[in-house]
Amino acid sequence: MENEDAIAIENVWPELDCGKFSAKAIMGDIFRVKADIFTHGTDMISADLKYRIRGDRDWESVPMNQGENDSWTGTFELTVTGSWEYTIEAWVDSFATQSRNIEAWIRGGESIESDLKVIISMMKSISLKCNRKDSAFIGKKITMINKSDPADVPEILNDPRLKTIVREHQDRKGLTVFSPILNVNVERRKAGFSSWYEIFPRSQGSKLGLSGTFMDCEKMLPYISSMGFDVLYLTPIHPVGISERRGKNGARNAQPGDPGSPWAIGNSTGGHDAINPDLGTMEDFLHLIESAGKYGLEIAMDIAFQCSPDHPYVTSHPQWFYHRPDGTIRYAENPPKKYYDIYPLNFDTEEREELWNELKRVILFWAQKGVRIFRVDNPHTKPLDFWRWIIENVKKEYDDVIFLAEAFTRPKVMYELSKLGFSMSYTYFTWRNFDFEIREYFSELSSPPVKSHFRPMLFTNTPDILPPILQNGGRPAFMMRSVLAATLSPLWGIYSGFEICENEAVPGTEEYMNSEKYEIKFRNFDAPNNIRALITKLNSIRRSEKALQSAGNVEFHQSDNSNIIFYSRQSSDGGDTVMIVVNLNPYEIHSATVRVPIQSLGVGSSEPYKVRDLLTGDLYVWQGEYNYVRLIPGERPAHILKLER
Amino acid sequence: MENEDAIAIENVWPELDCGKFSAKAIMGDIFRVKADIFTHGTDMISADLKYRIRGDRDWESVPMNQGENDSWTGTFELTVTGSWEYTIEAWVDSFATQSRNIEAWIRGGESIESDLKVIISMMKSISLKCNRKDSAFIGKKITMINKSDPADVPEILNDPRLKTIVREHQDRKGLTVFSPILNVNVERRKAGFSSWYEIFPRSQGSKLGLSGTFMDCEKMLPYISSMGFDVLYLTPIHPVGISERRGKNGARNAQPGDPGSPWAIGNSTGGHDAINPDLGTMEDFLHLIESAGKYGLEIAMDIAFQCSPDHPYVTSHPQWFYHRPDGTIRYAENPPKKYYDIYPLNFDTEEREELWNELKRVILFWAQKGVRIFRVDNPHTKPLDFWRWIIENVKKEYDDVIFLAEAFTRPKVMYELSKLGFSMSYTYFTWRNFDFEIREYFSELSSPPVKSHFRPMLFTNTPDILPPILQNGGRPAFMMRSVLAATLSPLWGIYSGFEICENEAVPGTEEYMNSEKYEIKFRNFDAPNNIRALITKLNSIRRSEKALQSAGNVEFHQSDNSNIIFYSRQSSDGGDTVMIVVNLNPYEIHSATVRVPIQSLGVGSSEPYKVRDLLTGDLYVWQGEYNYVRLIPGERPAHILKLER
Repeated sequence: MENEDAIAIENVWPELDCGKFSAKAIMGDIFRVKADIFTHGTDMISADLKYRIRGDRDWESVPMNQGENDSWTGTFELTVTGSWEYTIEAWVDSFATQSRNIEAWIRGGESIESDLKVIISMMKSISLKCNRKDSAFIGKKITMINKSDPADVPEILNDPRLKTIVREHQDRKGLTVFSPILNVNVERRKAGFSSWYEIFPRSQGSKLGLSGTFMDCEKMLPYISSMGFDVLYLTPIHPVGISERRGKNGARNAQPGDPGSPWAIGNSTGGHDAINPDLGTMEDFLHLIESAGKYGLEIAMDIAFQCSPDHPYVTSHPQWFYHRPDGTIRYAENPPKKYYDIYPLNFDTEEREELWNELKRVILFWAQKGVRIFRVDNPHTKPLDFWRWIIENVKKEYDDVIFLAEAFTRPKVMYELSKLGFSMSYTYFTWRNFDFEIREYFSELSSPPVKSHFRPMLFTNTPDILPPILQNGGRPAFMMRSVLAATLSPLWGIYSGFEICENEAVPGTEEYMNSEKYEIKFRNFDAPNNIRALITKLNSIRRSEKALQSAGNVEFHQSDNSNIIFYSRQSSDGGDTVMIVVNLNPYEIHSATVRVPIQSLGVGSSEPYKVRDLLTGDLYVWQGEYNYVRLIPGERPAHILKLER
Repeated sequence: MENEDAIAIENVWPELDCGKFSAKAIMGDIFRVKADIFTHGTDMISADLKYRIRGDRDWESVPMNQGENDSWTGTFELTVTGSWEYTIEAWVDSFATQSRNIEAWIRGGESIESDLKVIISMMKSISLKCNRKDSAFIGKKITMINKSDPADVPEILNDPRLKTIVREHQDRKGLTVFSPILNVNVERRKAGFSSWYEIFPRSQGSKLGLSGTFMDCEKMLPYISSMGFDVLYLTPIHPVGISERRGKNGARNAQPGDPGSPWAIGNSTGGHDAINPDLGTMEDFLHLIESAGKYGLEIAMDIAFQCSPDHPYVTSHPQWFYHRPDGTIRYAENPPKKYYDIYPLNFDTEEREELWNELKRVILFWAQKGVRIFRVDNPHTKPLDFWRWIIENVKKEYDDVIFLAEAFTRPKVMYELSKLGFSMSYTYFTWRNFDFEIREYFSELSSPPVKSHFRPMLFTNTPDILPPILQNGGRPAFMMRSVLAATLSPLWGIYSGFEICENEAVPGTEEYMNSEKYEIKFRNFDAPNNIRALITKLNSIRRSEKALQSAGNVEFHQSDNSNIIFYSRQSSDGGDTVMIVVNLNPYEIHSATVRVPIQSLGVGSSEPYKVRDLLTGDLYVWQGEYNYVRLIPGERPAHILKLER
């Protein structure tokens, strides 16, 4: 007759795949754990949420509170970054049960003589276990009980100090501990809240056709910083391959002077740990990191684990690549497409251990130089277990490293990369245009299990993605999409040129015409159609509104016109609610009656209230749930509203 | 660098609490297992569903099929009762990947020379591993490939026999096995599909005021069997306590001649393994079991692990009970209620092992006598781990034993009892009267995770529950509720007297007036208001319609009148759909337009079709989704419809 659990602890949340993966959180978060906890019969239960920083020996405990339908909740504060462990412990609380019974007998007009004897004997045995002061306190309580009218006993037993002493020293009958121990991975604030600006360093020059340098990048810092961004993401800065180099618009044969795709990494001057000499020196790069920091910008680096045919690995470690039957190295293929300028690495090579360790060395090399944010190119084409291993091991040395997954792939693979350790992930946002698409997708991202691990990074555009809505909708579409990106997630970004509404595509594709991937650009950011003011405003609102800094909190509300989407966000600590209304149609003025979540605003059903548009400063007087909005593309494409108290 | 899983196998279903509990199924079921299976990149995956009877050494395997969004499905047949194990194995299928690539290259107009070399070398290495015949077959295929036009290669590779040989012998690259091993508990058919009739044996006599006997019960068999029931559930047949015996309507003091509640078990003539001498002898009981069998009725026995103050355990094992500070034994209490005639057992007594083993002995004692169905009284007041232990151990000796949990308690405890082993469970059905209540509750029972373990037993009434709808609605309500119970679950039952619409209650309660719990009844089953014909018809329809024999398949459909509920059921093998429309209002005629699930019927959207009412034989011609129904309480309270092919 083995001793099984006396108490059921089930449906624990967060809990990913039976504890195989960690939940995610941000330092300073109040972490909330829920569970169903119950046992047979009518005895009362008490439960503790236990937690510790991984590696610590001792657990901290905090009492959990019982809610409806046997559901319990406990919280604790995540005070440092790193991996935390938590579990739940529950027991039959004989003292609480006996107290409740005494109350019930009294209400039923029954004698409690025998039950008093039982509870006094419990108190006596506890008083033997605690310190002198507490023991004296219990003794006083026993005297009170003996002297008092039975009707007054419940109040005596209901003393908070008495309960605390009892909780600490009582025999935890039927003690049951949830297994397995669960984990939450706590990262620094930027992993959960940041605004990104992406550039090709070589396009930051001042002379047409000449490669810009890190020093040129420094000149751009005031401009980028003035819009309120706090991460500056650089496309790869390494030497670019020469063999099979691609020309303008990705043509197979480059012309002399074509700079090649920076993702075709490596040539005779070096590989993943080297710097393209056209951009400058390592010293220049370190200087850029430092200068950026002064402007509140942190550098994010691109990690693309693939090689040009000229990469040093090709000769030093040919075994790290795939080979054809004739012994030649295989370029990248996704039948029927061929990428002649790229050799993929064979992560399952017989020299797997050497290869993996070398790639870890590359990341640690840059981390040591001061780069702590890595945007990982196409992680879904490399083994899942590789990422789990390398992220875990890099974080062991630098626990402030942030990884962004650029995995435009099937949803389950995308989520898996997040579960196994990526801090944040690109999403399908660029292709979600209609009301129902946005509602469905962001509801999924705001629901369990996704919300407990997946942090959506919303780029409005990337060097690979100029979505049809921007190609066709022009400036009003750029405005509308930037409002959505900046308010649907605490993580958003733009790829340089977005703010001047660059939107010429290779016809029938999502590729930019004359893509910066294959040539050096020279931009006039003061172009009259720029939407810099709007972007600056959006970043400023994001900085001031806590609700926009939390993930997984997007809630959609009714709108009677599907051109107008309406959603709100509230931070988990119950702070101010921010409401966002966007006209999704860049071509037409639309109006709608929207249903305001007045409960979450704390407004009565017929009470008038004022809402302030944070974009314009305008004040509207609304009343009740249903209110009217009218939004004009290119002028006032959206409201970002907050109750005026 | 530890070797982690190369392939993700997640979201496996059925899977209860990370494999802590078994799913349930019925012998002969085709068991369907689903999972998300995927890896990085674009390589193709193959997956096997593996299964075995617990205790077997070897696994059987069946290929899983890939569906949408990385979801895979496999099935196998459950050919015997007992516990089965299953898991999933997946690997990167290099042969399938290479075949697909060859096809893609051909479509793209590329040369496949180098890829052919690779696949031929794969085929050669497989041919070395298989038997001579298969090896020769592969050799022939290689010759064909070498000789043929490249365009014909895909067809050569697409040969089913070739694929089977490859699947068996290929290196299973990246082989990943799901863990933990999962379980499904397979029971005999009656655990999933049965119709119960409940009697107090002592009320089956022919002389007013005299206890009926097992021999009298035998006289009732033709009557009960004629209505189509297949389980005869007897309230406790053990000696009844004398001290504190309850009188009529539960009065504290019995009068001479009062027979007492049969749930106050035990007196000087014996306890849980004895028979109340008023009912007859053990031989009489065995004879009843045998006779019942001849009428297609299996006996279900009541297991109520509690004692009257006169139970032999009280003197032989006083330690098995709870004691007051003064040493006396505590009767059952649920403050402020007291049950003087019942001593609860203390399952956590220091003699826990002796007590638990004795209770197991009691069940095995009756199982050995031929009883294989036990209706367990109030299991939620006994420890959860006790039930897990006793059910597991009883099934080790008699794997055909069925346990029904009578746990009217909080939903999570109810579900937990089911998860830990009860074959079937009483439900909240008796208190679900309105359209929305029925929809909500039975949708929950038909959804994961509940549907994979919880088998709802719908009693229309019990000796403890005469619900208000029957008290007030009279005969039309009895008709309506019997249709619901018989068609909302494959398990239903009535407590004797239901068929003659007995509905007098103690005012303001759900207790029967002059409850049979405390006195011997004498009934005229030929009373003119009886609904025997309807009940007989319902059981006959249940026997002929496979859809009504499966659980978890209730699907609700639109009705524009909330007095009329509309649902359908289809067996998991895709057989005939049965549609049920019920007027929930026993007082008024109601009509409604209902939305027919024509897709599941295989009917086109504007096609006329005929539906047959299995209750009356009437034929209706319907067209399209929306059709009209009109239901008359007491006459035609419901339709049970089937498409006439």
